[in-house]
Amino acid sequence: MKSLSGNLLVAQSGGPTPVINAGLAGVLSAALQFEDNIEEIYGAINGVEGILNEDFIDLAAESQQTVRLLSSTPGAALGSCRYKLKSEQDLARILEVFKAHNIRYFHYIGGNDSQDSSNAIAEYCAQNGYEVRVIGVPKTIDNDLVLTDHCPGYGSTIKYIATTVRELACDCASLGRNDLVTIIEVMGRSAGWIAAGASLAKRRGNAEDAPHIVLIPEVPFRRDAFVNAVKDVLSVQKHCVVVAAEGIVDEAGNYLGANTAALDAFGHPRLGGVCEYLKNVVEESFSGVKTRTCRPGHIQRTATHCASKTDSDESFMAGVAAVKAAVAGESGKMVILVREEKDRYGVSPGLAPLSEIANGVKKFPESWVGEGGMTIGYQFVRYALPLIQGSVAGTDESGVPKMAVLRRVPVERLCPPYKK
Amino acid sequence: MKSLSGNLLVAQSGGPTPVINAGLAGVLSAALQFEDNIEEIYGAINGVEGILNEDFIDLAAESQQTVRLLSSTPGAALGSCRYKLKSEQDLARILEVFKAHNIRYFHYIGGNDSQDSSNAIAEYCAQNGYEVRVIGVPKTIDNDLVLTDHCPGYGSTIKYIATTVRELACDCASLGRNDLVTIIEVMGRSAGWIAAGASLAKRRGNAEDAPHIVLIPEVPFRRDAFVNAVKDVLSVQKHCVVVAAEGIVDEAGNYLGANTAALDAFGHPRLGGVCEYLKNVVEESFSGVKTRTCRPGHIQRTATHCASKTDSDESFMAGVAAVKAAVAGESGKMVILVREEKDRYGVSPGLAPLSEIANGVKKFPESWVGEGGMTIGYQFVRYALPLIQGSVAGTDESGVPKMAVLRRVPVERLCPPYKK
Repeated sequence: MKSLSGNLLVAQSGGPTPVINAGLAGVLSAALQFEDNIEEIYGAINGVEGILNEDFIDLAAESQQTVRLLSSTPGAALGSCRYKLKSEQDLARILEVFKAHNIRYFHYIGGNDSQDSSNAIAEYCAQNGYEVRVIGVPKTIDNDLVLTDHCPGYGSTIKYIATTVRELACDCASLGRNDLVTIIEVMGRSAGWIAAGASLAKRRGNAEDAPHIVLIPEVPFRRDAFVNAVKDVLSVQKHCVVVAAEGIVDEAGNYLGANTAALDAFGHPRLGGVCEYLKNVVEESFSGVKTRTCRPGHIQRTATHCASKTDSDESFMAGVAAVKAAVAGESGKMVILVREEKDRYGVSPGLAPLSEIANGVKKFPESWVGEGGMTIGYQFVRYALPLIQGSVAGTDESGVPKMAVLRRVPVERLCPPYKK
Repeated sequence: MKSLSGNLLVAQSGGPTPVINAGLAGVLSAALQFEDNIEEIYGAINGVEGILNEDFIDLAAESQQTVRLLSSTPGAALGSCRYKLKSEQDLARILEVFKAHNIRYFHYIGGNDSQDSSNAIAEYCAQNGYEVRVIGVPKTIDNDLVLTDHCPGYGSTIKYIATTVRELACDCASLGRNDLVTIIEVMGRSAGWIAAGASLAKRRGNAEDAPHIVLIPEVPFRRDAFVNAVKDVLSVQKHCVVVAAEGIVDEAGNYLGANTAALDAFGHPRLGGVCEYLKNVVEESFSGVKTRTCRPGHIQRTATHCASKTDSDESFMAGVAAVKAAVAGESGKMVILVREEKDRYGVSPGLAPLSEIANGVKKFPESWVGEGGMTIGYQFVRYALPLIQGSVAGTDESGVPKMAVLRRVPVERLCPPYKK
């Protein structure tokens, strides 16, 4: 294997997760160990936009204290973006910037779209005879990346959701007089992984525990079946907890969250949200039943105070593995998590081609959905339970978590400004 | 002081808090210490409804493990109710049940309305020559009880809100391209205590930290002033975090959450919620500004995984103090928290007449609201910061918090069924 010397660039992209910065900390930690290969360690601000704009910071200048705090800091510490590289002009600019700064290692921490960009960069540089090793670091709360057993970020989000549902259920069970339906809307536009995660709130063997009904986008919503399911739960106990993915659709494939029956002051359809839709269904179908709705929204992807240690450690490990693989000569790949075939849970890092990651979406397996389509099977629990184990010890700052704030020491610009 | 022997009854009422069961644990702990005065320790299921229905359980039969878990279990472990005692018939029934079970100590864990019931019970028993010592235990996330420095439950709720806002702010700051307004709707129908608590997310001396705008019911909403405040924030940084109490009103006193411009399929006004209202205001006032909304709803009062140790300890202490005061001969009072006049924060338990508690509501002090009415002053931070210190060590059960589940060993019924 030919040794390659130069500078390393790391960037973050897409929706942040509770542990996205643990992946960054992993990259930093490993990069410092390869001083024969890696000279400077740079971060691009706001993903590929930071490369286009040559907006780099010197990550080696950050304090150890800050780096240690990264693993308990949500949001993307380097800033994120939603920019999709498309034009050859963009790619040529990236090559120009990489050459100017002698970038030989590039790690993009992100999901499908981000790894698509990684792939385009890797291919363009190779076609133009510039050697740079591109290894992606996986990240998404949606758990929809193919080839990897699961994604860093997912375990922490479902630990928060499961914790919250179990806690809410205690409150729901408190008020015994009226029937009560509690609806919690969670993230998941196209896949039910997050909603399914709520089912980890159930104690083993306690079918009557919340959540009683889980609605995922993979199973089209049928009003009658839903109303009957609620009725069945309320016939046994006085409260019913429903967890619904934001992306659930009717049998024609239309989002339920887009409520065309309600118009705003300008006559535009009002996006009432899935929980408002379901609340209306319950109120129209039952009399004397109270409803409550919770829509934590982006809190789901930022609740690092409730992050899973397993997840955080795996995110860090993925960052380390990306640098190691690149130094060892790999490129055009993303780190994946491979579940070990052992009695006890464990994962080891593997690699998969960026091109295959970029174009796939992992749906929730049909066979893991319970009969009737509104509960989650034991196969999922077996799969997901190890991912939520352990807690991340954050640092307290007057009663709230202390956050890493990067100094952001700028790297001198060497190229002319980019004109798109 | 005349010694009084008999049985103790404890019950819970109103909206549960993250630490309401710590108060119950405090009552149990103290009750066991006074074996000369207190024979049996009973719990009424679902508050005063459990007294009317003679639905008692034997709390001494619960395991020590369960009692220890109570302090990290949200919801009302004994069940709660919203029943207001009104009729003399109800009071006569309660006296009948008290006499049958020789109840000589009664502790109601609850807010204003619950202490109103406590007061009615205390007065009715006294008028009818039955000696029972009634000492209330305070509980409300709303912090609106008068005479007490603050209320058990409040500190934990604002610790969760402040933690969540600080975490969300990291995510908001990540996405640098577009201006972004994030709106978080929190509880508080008539007082701004909870919304104000979000301001503890700011680091000391960092005025630019989230939350940038806090809207409370005490300050009527003025659309122009709000839009200007958002504009001011966005002129300095690319994201603006707004925390709004659900109960904010316009200058005519109408709830903003009741959106009459949107009608549902039946032509009824749709309760869009405050965050949807503010989202519309932002979208109508700015072009190219993205908005996000979070409505954690009842999660705010159940997030015991993020409870404050100070708050939990004070709730326990209030339960202990209630029993001690009753054994010492007090009655017709509620335990209050008295802040000590010392350099270091501390509270000691005091007592206040139930009649005065029942009829008061503590508003957020006008002088603690910042200029312009949309920020919270340092006086509040000085008041509230001690209340969110420390964490409650819960017990882990496969990655989610383990909850206390009472065995609920029933006490034999001695009275005829109650016919209302």
